[in-house]
Amino acid sequence: MSQTLRPSGRAPDALRPVVISRHFTKHAEGSVLIEFGDTRVICTASIEDKVPGFLKGKGQGWMTAEYGMLPRSTHTRMDREAAKGKQSGRTQEIQRLIGRSLRAAFDLEAFGERTLHIDCDVIQADGGTRTASITGAMVAAYDAFSKLVERGAITAIPVKHFVAAISVGVYQGVPVLDLDYPEDSSCDTDMNVVMTEQGHFVEVQGTAEGEAFDRATMNRLLDLAQEGITDLIALQKQVLSM
Amino acid sequence: MSQTLRPSGRAPDALRPVVISRHFTKHAEGSVLIEFGDTRVICTASIEDKVPGFLKGKGQGWMTAEYGMLPRSTHTRMDREAAKGKQSGRTQEIQRLIGRSLRAAFDLEAFGERTLHIDCDVIQADGGTRTASITGAMVAAYDAFSKLVERGAITAIPVKHFVAAISVGVYQGVPVLDLDYPEDSSCDTDMNVVMTEQGHFVEVQGTAEGEAFDRATMNRLLDLAQEGITDLIALQKQVLSM
Amino acid sequence: MSQTLRPSGRAPDALRPVVISRHFTKHAEGSVLIEFGDTRVICTASIEDKVPGFLKGKGQGWMTAEYGMLPRSTHTRMDREAAKGKQSGRTQEIQRLIGRSLRAAFDLEAFGERTLHIDCDVIQADGGTRTASITGAMVAAYDAFSKLVERGAITAIPVKHFVAAISVGVYQGVPVLDLDYPEDSSCDTDMNVVMTEQGHFVEVQGTAEGEAFDRATMNRLLDLAQEGITDLIALQKQVLSM
Amino acid sequence: MSQTLRPSGRAPDALRPVVISRHFTKHAEGSVLIEFGDTRVICTASIEDKVPGFLKGKGQGWMTAEYGMLPRSTHTRMDREAAKGKQSGRTQEIQRLIGRSLRAAFDLEAFGERTLHIDCDVIQADGGTRTASITGAMVAAYDAFSKLVERGAITAIPVKHFVAAISVGVYQGVPVLDLDYPEDSSCDTDMNVVMTEQGHFVEVQGTAEGEAFDRATMNRLLDLAQEGITDLIALQKQVLSM
Amino acid sequence: MSQTLRPSGRAPDALRPVVISRHFTKHAEGSVLIEFGDTRVICTASIEDKVPGFLKGKGQGWMTAEYGMLPRSTHTRMDREAAKGKQSGRTQEIQRLIGRSLRAAFDLEAFGERTLHIDCDVIQADGGTRTASITGAMVAAYDAFSKLVERGAITAIPVKHFVAAISVGVYQGVPVLDLDYPEDSSCDTDMNVVMTEQGHFVEVQGTAEGEAFDRATMNRLLDLAQEGITDLIALQKQVLSM
Amino acid sequence: MSQTLRPSGRAPDALRPVVISRHFTKHAEGSVLIEFGDTRVICTASIEDKVPGFLKGKGQGWMTAEYGMLPRSTHTRMDREAAKGKQSGRTQEIQRLIGRSLRAAFDLEAFGERTLHIDCDVIQADGGTRTASITGAMVAAYDAFSKLVERGAITAIPVKHFVAAISVGVYQGVPVLDLDYPEDSSCDTDMNVVMTEQGHFVEVQGTAEGEAFDRATMNRLLDLAQEGITDLIALQKQVLSM
Repeated sequence: MSQTLRPSGRAPDALRPVVISRHFTKHAEGSVLIEFGDTRVICTASIEDKVPGFLKGKGQGWMTAEYGMLPRSTHTRMDREAAKGKQSGRTQEIQRLIGRSLRAAFDLEAFGERTLHIDCDVIQADGGTRTASITGAMVAAYDAFSKLVERGAITAIPVKHFVAAISVGVYQGVPVLDLDYPEDSSCDTDMNVVMTEQGHFVEVQGTAEGEAFDRATMNRLLDLAQEGITDLIALQKQVLSM
Repeated sequence: MSQTLRPSGRAPDALRPVVISRHFTKHAEGSVLIEFGDTRVICTASIEDKVPGFLKGKGQGWMTAEYGMLPRSTHTRMDREAAKGKQSGRTQEIQRLIGRSLRAAFDLEAFGERTLHIDCDVIQADGGTRTASITGAMVAAYDAFSKLVERGAITAIPVKHFVAAISVGVYQGVPVLDLDYPEDSSCDTDMNVVMTEQGHFVEVQGTAEGEAFDRATMNRLLDLAQEGITDLIALQKQVLSM
Repeated sequence: MSQTLRPSGRAPDALRPVVISRHFTKHAEGSVLIEFGDTRVICTASIEDKVPGFLKGKGQGWMTAEYGMLPRSTHTRMDREAAKGKQSGRTQEIQRLIGRSLRAAFDLEAFGERTLHIDCDVIQADGGTRTASITGAMVAAYDAFSKLVERGAITAIPVKHFVAAISVGVYQGVPVLDLDYPEDSSCDTDMNVVMTEQGHFVEVQGTAEGEAFDRATMNRLLDLAQEGITDLIALQKQVLSM
Repeated sequence: MSQTLRPSGRAPDALRPVVISRHFTKHAEGSVLIEFGDTRVICTASIEDKVPGFLKGKGQGWMTAEYGMLPRSTHTRMDREAAKGKQSGRTQEIQRLIGRSLRAAFDLEAFGERTLHIDCDVIQADGGTRTASITGAMVAAYDAFSKLVERGAITAIPVKHFVAAISVGVYQGVPVLDLDYPEDSSCDTDMNVVMTEQGHFVEVQGTAEGEAFDRATMNRLLDLAQEGITDLIALQKQVLSM
Repeated sequence: MSQTLRPSGRAPDALRPVVISRHFTKHAEGSVLIEFGDTRVICTASIEDKVPGFLKGKGQGWMTAEYGMLPRSTHTRMDREAAKGKQSGRTQEIQRLIGRSLRAAFDLEAFGERTLHIDCDVIQADGGTRTASITGAMVAAYDAFSKLVERGAITAIPVKHFVAAISVGVYQGVPVLDLDYPEDSSCDTDMNVVMTEQGHFVEVQGTAEGEAFDRATMNRLLDLAQEGITDLIALQKQVLSM
Repeated sequence: MSQTLRPSGRAPDALRPVVISRHFTKHAEGSVLIEFGDTRVICTASIEDKVPGFLKGKGQGWMTAEYGMLPRSTHTRMDREAAKGKQSGRTQEIQRLIGRSLRAAFDLEAFGERTLHIDCDVIQADGGTRTASITGAMVAAYDAFSKLVERGAITAIPVKHFVAAISVGVYQGVPVLDLDYPEDSSCDTDMNVVMTEQGHFVEVQGTAEGEAFDRATMNRLLDLAQEGITDLIALQKQVLSM
């Protein structure tokens, strides 16, 4: 039975409980605590009234993201990247992914020469920190742009379409949705999918950790991802009272 | 009236509301969220079964601390230290202070060749992050040592005496307890005091930001600090059900 | 006509001329110059008789990859990463991708406690440097393992299956194979695919630079990639006289 | 007898011989060699005709300090910080302390948009390097400002009050003044005090290395510090022929 | 017989076969592959239309050089400097030498406020990489300046005199020209000489690896170097069809 | 008259006054203050009872050197290398030169598995800091080895021959000895020569800053250097009472 397959007892197509708490901290223009089960990430969106050098004078905005994990967000303590003096390749890869995903969701030409800084900081890790980060950052960014509208700086929130992200993978031969840590650390294939509310792909990153996977598996994984992301976007809109 | 002096309306000798929540994250041996008003810090204690090179083979343990602020824990976003590739002088000064304070609280010779890593990560800053860190880390470390007792690795929690920390300062000419950010950023004198449950000093760090301060002022500040720390240690023991 | 669409005049499903030259430099156990049109990458494979710390004593091998671009491999000179003192996020992302791809091609348990270091250095860039790197590194690694067989250190080349990589994308609305620089810098969607000789996926990394792409487009892109990779693997085997 | 207690044979309230030599090197606007017994520090003050970015256009000046130790200023050779590529936490803590102390001594609004750089380099260390640095830097800064007066750039030396610094501590149970290395490395409590000629505190930094210390001890230590600093300021003025 | 002395069988005064291939890569203004026997270096010259800060507004140009070795250009793989985060002292010494040598060859005041960046990247190392770099960079720079003349930016190539470089040394007691790796790694004295077409010295860097060398030996080495450089400059001019 | 040519009024073949003061600081095994006129360098030699990894178990010793300048040893303040987090190319070049020179003076196989660390720190710079460093380090190293003899660790000082260093150059067309800063900053040719007491060359590093120099000039410069070094070595021996 698939119910008994997953360590968590979840059905193959079941998300973990997802909770999105807005206004989690008080200083940021947008601040969200997102939970995918035991994975907890603080996503903040900060507005700065200038753009990087390569965009100066072009009349458009920019969005960029940074990602970090608290040293003891994980099972065993990791070294603090600030103390080591460099960010790992994994960290850089994730923050580039978050940045691209958010830039796909908003119209960079519709909020002036401003930069929206996304910070995703993992408080507790149990698999799926990058997909939770993207899903939470979408809401934090929306809130931050609302502040710009309230201040009269722009007339409308420059959203093109909502995006959310989820992982899918093959665990013990079965395609499953939303891998938690025990699944993630022993699965054969791991894929992160970022999708719009129209069901179009923004990012697809699939990796065969063990056996390479065939086209049929890929199709099943994409189906699962689409279902999960549809639910996540519905939740994003619900917490925003849309 | 002194009641009307402070931006928060607090009396000169009043702490902000202090909340200590244990077991805040699930992986760390000790994990505490401490709140001094709007200042919120996650303090975790992680046990590693080895010591730094300079202590190898000496049969004693070590405690060390790291400190960080989430980039948007502050009014305006700070650069992420991991991205800059170095920790600021302020960060290093604070983590050295936390480490010394905790090493004064516990008997390093009573828990074997182990290292206790303290991580204090500021989620939201409103003044007093280093004193909240020390006060919360005391509880997180106590919890971590309890785990070692439960595992049978040691027979008793190696605490010498409880320590807690508070800031005091001269705000608009009046000595006050537990400075919040509006006070901290405009006060003349700022002092951080770390004290044991016996009322003895572990650390005293006073700085005249504007006018140098005289001996009488110093005495009044130390009185205030002692009152505040007495209350904080009572709270530490209460949340630990001692 | 699609023939006139691409700046190079290539058909949508046409690879650029691919040349793989073995024994390009004399010191490395495996050394290949691979050309995808004007893109030229030196791929070397070096054998070291030890493994990283996390694998010590486990009786298995390791493969790892590094990637670099000569400062003037590109249209305008880039800063030298060694002089800047850090590798960019893009560099790290690519070298992680190369490493995972090669580890999928070979049996890490079949060549003892040795590390195979892959170095991919771009001499001239015209799009597709990462896919050329993977495709060339496969041959360089095969040659390096042949040396181990010749030395009698192992009895057979520990290959599980050949892998190669190609990019696909949507250029001016049309799915095309093997993007060159003019296409890459203005396409809507860019996907890098790493595949085995069985036609199974090792890595799929698709990014919508502009519009998000739908499922039908994704299917067409994967078809194109499979065709291209089949040709590349045939070429790899031909130059190895298999 | 307390006379026999200290390794040096000094009385508990005795400073080491202090020598301040002005014009020690020829290029700096102010250059002082200060000796506290065997501790020897070169303090230079350099004037730059601009201020850091955060002060630009505000019409005021800035003072900042850097500190270093020659690798073999100590009993065993330390690694050179320039070779390691980073300054230790201790170094940063000390240079922040020197900077704050000097900024308390001079009126930053009275010497235009200029920066005074203090460099304190320890040639030989025998305890008390930070207090010697502050005490010597006061004289070097005074000399540098004299140069500005001579050049007609300002009309008066912008001194608010002289400052000097000394360490005090509890050595074998007895409060003593001006710890040398043998005392510093084995004392229970170590306090560095920076004070003005009015006897007011600029900085107080006390640390219990072993036992926490009580209020009475603190009072005795502050008394000792005040006596020592009074003597040091008298000497500063004497060498400046004031 | 001296013919049998050298591992390569060369006469003491014989250069290795030297090949200079222009237009080796397509993006750079000047691009040369230079081979001194098995030593192969790619030398590119890139023109940037600005100068470093210290020359801004002075109406003159600048030339600077960087040097690197591919990790497996050598017998055993070296660590990649970009991955280590710093360039070695040897690398910096070589790139400073190349820069000074090229600045001696061209008239910095005759090509406007432009910077010519030289990049010398060693593909395969067999001794003499720095002298091959200088000799090849001369041609690459000449080609780059030709581009400026073609574009009408300057009226003539700002060459003062051609320069080339060669190593000489004492191998098994005999002064020899153009050391290859087996000679370089076991010779007593190693000297790199950079000379103009007039036979004047730009740089002389001689090092006694074992025994110090006397004046007579020095004279013989300088004679050999002059002969070799005369040949190299003839070759430079020949490939440039001068 | 050549006597009036040089800014200092020195004859072309005149050294500046040279003073070598031994036992300048108390902790180092060898400690020398060397003055070449206004150039003042502290040279210390520290003995460590182990060798770098590449020499472990080979039964021989090692000598290595580091060099630094105090930030205000120069006319205008330089940035502190420890604060910048890296040593300049110039610094690395100089410390490599000092290390090679000293390794030529002593027999590395005659003092066991020990490392002698040379530190040359420039207190005041007026030209010739690297040659003063080498000349002073020779004496400091000799003193350090004497300590080893005194301790009975070795039976004799492992000196092969004394070395010293001096600069020569062409100033306003005239070859001169021992360039000071005004000469060094405007001379055409600058050469640093390291020589043994037998008059043999250890290092020759000549650079044409302006015009390339011919063979006759080179010969004259080497003559001058030899005279100067002969005097320096006589002085080294005199201060060592040999």
